[in-house]
Amino acid sequence: MSHSDTHLHHHEEHLQSSDFITDVVIGMSDGLTVPFALAAGLSGAVSSSDLVVTAGIAEIVAGSIAMGLGGYLAGRTEADHYQSELKREYDEVERVPEREKQEVRDVFAEYGLSLDLQNAIADELAKDKKKWVDFMMRFELDLSEPDPNRATKSALTIGLSYVAGGFLPLLPYFFVESPIDGLMWSSVATLICLFVFGYFKSKITGQPPVSGAFKVMLIGAAAAAAAFSIAKYTV
Amino acid sequence: MSHSDTHLHHHEEHLQSSDFITDVVIGMSDGLTVPFALAAGLSGAVSSSDLVVTAGIAEIVAGSIAMGLGGYLAGRTEADHYQSELKREYDEVERVPEREKQEVRDVFAEYGLSLDLQNAIADELAKDKKKWVDFMMRFELDLSEPDPNRATKSALTIGLSYVAGGFLPLLPYFFVESPIDGLMWSSVATLICLFVFGYFKSKITGQPPVSGAFKVMLIGAAAAAAAFSIAKYTV
Repeated sequence: MSHSDTHLHHHEEHLQSSDFITDVVIGMSDGLTVPFALAAGLSGAVSSSDLVVTAGIAEIVAGSIAMGLGGYLAGRTEADHYQSELKREYDEVERVPEREKQEVRDVFAEYGLSLDLQNAIADELAKDKKKWVDFMMRFELDLSEPDPNRATKSALTIGLSYVAGGFLPLLPYFFVESPIDGLMWSSVATLICLFVFGYFKSKITGQPPVSGAFKVMLIGAAAAAAAFSIAKYTV
Repeated sequence: MSHSDTHLHHHEEHLQSSDFITDVVIGMSDGLTVPFALAAGLSGAVSSSDLVVTAGIAEIVAGSIAMGLGGYLAGRTEADHYQSELKREYDEVERVPEREKQEVRDVFAEYGLSLDLQNAIADELAKDKKKWVDFMMRFELDLSEPDPNRATKSALTIGLSYVAGGFLPLLPYFFVESPIDGLMWSSVATLICLFVFGYFKSKITGQPPVSGAFKVMLIGAAAAAAAFSIAKYTV
């Protein structure tokens, strides 16, 4: 939300998370949950911790690449979409200015402004094509200009956060023989981390932190319990 | 984008994906990629297809629950955030109307409108508190009202799409002894599906479909190749 710096007092009051924090949350949220639940599922079905570790590593690699590259692709798509809509709007204010002016009026008609005022706004905006197009991009199409390096940064942040989150639940399985022992330590460590993670995530998004922490922890526990039961009874 | 229905011609020209389609794409994108890559990784490390199937099922369960419940939580958070900001704005137009009027002016100052016009807009908007607040929500805070059932629908759509996407790469392993044979058939089937999926996903998001299809397919192939290599050499 690049325009927020024009509203300084809101900047402070309305808690906003940066793109970086958002990406860390996206990556770590799945990274803590999915490898944890996969390892839990396998613990109910195999007899060696080594297998859980192998599968866990394969999952972390697969998940971080899929999420990281997926984030990259999403970022590129967003940037391309913005550019193609920008080009279209420049073309339209040139080719069919009256229709574009009508669209400006429509935006304000929705908010009950008088026809006189709608006309005055449309006429003044039309004096500066760049600002007119910027206005249409944001207020008609609801698009804000993406950071050109966002895709790459996003890919790396999401991918690495997934890896960081994913190794924690896997760690105990490195040190024990029996997967069930691994599962016990993994559950304790991961549920604590999910709670702490959920607490901060909720704070960042402006939600009640304690109930948010419980929700995040319960999702992890539910996924692990379901994977454990299903893997156990399908073998 | 609930306000798009006021711009009928744009509705047709600017291709917009519905929330449902977006959720299917989110779930299926990861569902096709991660279980495929996990199974590929395990194929390089274990000697029995059964283990690949067990791990794959555990992953699908874990992934669909994590993504589905994660989607639910994200939807609830968005709805709660909207409501709390709405309440705050109603409070602010009541308590500090002059400051809120100044914020309306600031929005238009950014687009080069004259001071007279800024004042006229702020004064007219201030006549109807509901419309004033609606205006602030969308144009100052960039928030649109979320569908109240979005969270639940989103959770189910993402979760089921993940399951649907995840079973395809796993299917061949049910029918063969050796995981490497399973991997061969799984790769052929999944890469074709990723290509088709990438084609339609790109069409929906208004991107060049063929290059988009290749990108989606390559992400899947990269994740599978990386998981395969790493699992093979860590065992």
